[in-house]
Amino acid sequence: MTTPTTDPAEARARFRAGLRVPTAGWAPGYAQANMIIVPRDYAYDALLFGQRNPKPCPIIDVTDPGSPHTALAEGADLRTDLPAYRVWRDGELVDEPTDITGYWTDDLVAFLIGCSFTFETPMLAAGIEIRHITTGGNVSMYKTNRPCRPAGRLSGPMVVSMRPIPADRVADAVRISGQFPAVHGAPVHIGEPEALGIKDLSTPDFGDPVEIRDGEVPVFWACGVTPQAAIMASHPPFAITHAPGYMFVTDTPDHTYAV
Amino acid sequence: MTTPTTDPAEARARFRAGLRVPTAGWAPGYAQANMIIVPRDYAYDALLFGQRNPKPCPIIDVTDPGSPHTALAEGADLRTDLPAYRVWRDGELVDEPTDITGYWTDDLVAFLIGCSFTFETPMLAAGIEIRHITTGGNVSMYKTNRPCRPAGRLSGPMVVSMRPIPADRVADAVRISGQFPAVHGAPVHIGEPEALGIKDLSTPDFGDPVEIRDGEVPVFWACGVTPQAAIMASHPPFAITHAPGYMFVTDTPDHTYAV
Repeated sequence: MTTPTTDPAEARARFRAGLRVPTAGWAPGYAQANMIIVPRDYAYDALLFGQRNPKPCPIIDVTDPGSPHTALAEGADLRTDLPAYRVWRDGELVDEPTDITGYWTDDLVAFLIGCSFTFETPMLAAGIEIRHITTGGNVSMYKTNRPCRPAGRLSGPMVVSMRPIPADRVADAVRISGQFPAVHGAPVHIGEPEALGIKDLSTPDFGDPVEIRDGEVPVFWACGVTPQAAIMASHPPFAITHAPGYMFVTDTPDHTYAV
Repeated sequence: MTTPTTDPAEARARFRAGLRVPTAGWAPGYAQANMIIVPRDYAYDALLFGQRNPKPCPIIDVTDPGSPHTALAEGADLRTDLPAYRVWRDGELVDEPTDITGYWTDDLVAFLIGCSFTFETPMLAAGIEIRHITTGGNVSMYKTNRPCRPAGRLSGPMVVSMRPIPADRVADAVRISGQFPAVHGAPVHIGEPEALGIKDLSTPDFGDPVEIRDGEVPVFWACGVTPQAAIMASHPPFAITHAPGYMFVTDTPDHTYAV
């Protein structure tokens, strides 16, 4: 396991150099972001999908067409600074590179979407274990039976992330994450995974399985991987995303998103 | 003075019938909305302007092109149900009708934007006088020296609304409005209007002047009239907005926007 750095610019530099690891626990205290990149022709649909589905898709920055730069991290390059990407053609995954410079065109627009990792730091500070950080793995993510509100040519199910929380700390987890409405906010569902259409928690659709111990409840938050489920369901001709759990590390402190 | 109704559908029916009054104090407890309508070609710029300027332009619904219907009020028609509209050509105000059916085309997209009236009801309930409701007038609004973050072809200054608040209730006004981040949230500026570039509070750029009494502080909130200032600064070929203070009354309870 590669030891995470606490500095966001250093994290991006190591990913730029080719390090491919999930970013949970990296640069704690700085917001991480999901990413979806689409051609300009699809940008309105993507932006509207975020506006209509703010719990799973809280958009925190949008680039100008062709620009790989973001207001969330000076000097960062979105083509190289994430640890892993996914390239999609007609809704099919065709590549998982660590660099997308070869795919870049002046027509592409990148959307950065808030990430639930932002509220993991204050949850840890409150003494709530985040199991996938303890184990150095990736958070568990699942497609649900809850449809997103469609936007133009984009539609698909809501994706959730899951964290096992001791029953006597669930209320604290709700209270703490609820202070960050711009980065998914409070859970969308607590316990009862079957009601979300999740048949087996041990086989997540994205990320790694996470152990749920006696006395723990699975708690579900809306997840920024939802646009990838929309790509799979809607088959746009071309898109690039981050690889689930391999996020863009910003220079923006988590507390920026607290209310 | 026409007596306001407490029922949002009844309010819309009276405006549809031609009643032209500011909507402050109408259907208390239900969210009101600013509106900007642009051709499909400008819709991405308008949506991105809202994403990049969430304090003045919190977008709460977007219609599909050509549809005058919104998820915020079943059966409402955005072409007739506001008490007054403004029609803009090349950034110039050309008409202020009570009905825009004659201007409507299948190419138009409407954006509904949160309104600070939403937090006036809980402020009243906390015993804070809202002067423009007391007097039955329109809230005072001012262009400021604070530029919005541009989006495509749209740019312009932030507009603020002003309410005089007793000095010993300003903290309460901050706390209460801060619970509604999706509808402008906490004030952007308290006291010191000159620092916002406002030379004379008695001559607002939009709405009516409001008396400020001894012991009261002018408190400024980001305002959903900001897109109209962007229209004046950016000269899009065509746009329709609500008339400032003459809002769209939704069926959505104010508490929907509380965190």
